[in-house]
Amino acid sequence: MEQRISLITLGVTDMERSARFYETLGWTRVDSPDGVIAFDLIGQTLGLYPRTALAEDLGVPVESIGGFSGITLAHNLRSPDEVAPLLAGAEAAGGRILKPAQEVFWGGFHGYFADPDGHVWEIAHNPFSPLSEAGAFRWLGYGE
Amino acid sequence: MEQRISLITLGVTDMERSARFYETLGWTRVDSPDGVIAFDLIGQTLGLYPRTALAEDLGVPVESIGGFSGITLAHNLRSPDEVAPLLAGAEAAGGRILKPAQEVFWGGFHGYFADPDGHVWEIAHNPFSPLSEAGAFRWLGYGE
Repeated sequence: MEQRISLITLGVTDMERSARFYETLGWTRVDSPDGVIAFDLIGQTLGLYPRTALAEDLGVPVESIGGFSGITLAHNLRSPDEVAPLLAGAEAAGGRILKPAQEVFWGGFHGYFADPDGHVWEIAHNPFSPLSEAGAFRWLGYGE
Repeated sequence: MEQRISLITLGVTDMERSARFYETLGWTRVDSPDGVIAFDLIGQTLGLYPRTALAEDLGVPVESIGGFSGITLAHNLRSPDEVAPLLAGAEAAGGRILKPAQEVFWGGFHGYFADPDGHVWEIAHNPFSPLSEAGAFRWLGYGE
């Protein structure tokens, strides 16, 4: 198994509400068939898919979706000063702040929000892992 | 908010069991401090983090972790013939098959497994979205 994740799918209850949330944050979707909404990221795509369709695809009851798997998606920023404004933007767009912007014990600066379906995002600045110019992340960073 | 996910964190109950699972599938970790295990992917990192530490970081009870958020991680392959062997490898490594390899209504070929903590992976071949030579994915593909 090569080291990649091609597509991250978020099961959602209201496709347009969810798409509007990410579009309000500044994302642009690509063309896709009805029933799926796709945002291209760096080398992968984030897809929005109805919970009902995801449940059917997996063969599980739709009621089984909605807990917290313990997966978080981190969006890293170039400066700690960008963290609080992005969290505020997420709240204004209909997200819920789970943890306000603050210093973290490991030396970074971060906060968390949940999207309209409860999917958990960490907004972070990690001074030890500078992003590439294109915004790519790797554990040991793109520093000189 | 730029379009990227820097880090995907999986909360796990047994760090070494989880790391062994991904290493058995062929992944190689990078150096990291005690308490976190990191696998660099394409432009992002997958991190394993103890559920207890994740719960503390989020300020939620650890018992609230373990449901199913409705997030799936897809690993796409270059050929449909690679799907079943990868699922078999995941099962042999300690995963659980959720859906055996099969054709999908949208014209692809896929199956699902859960990792030792129940995190859901889709293993797929999508003939409409060929991967780049480096394995990167985008919705409309890297075909000529």
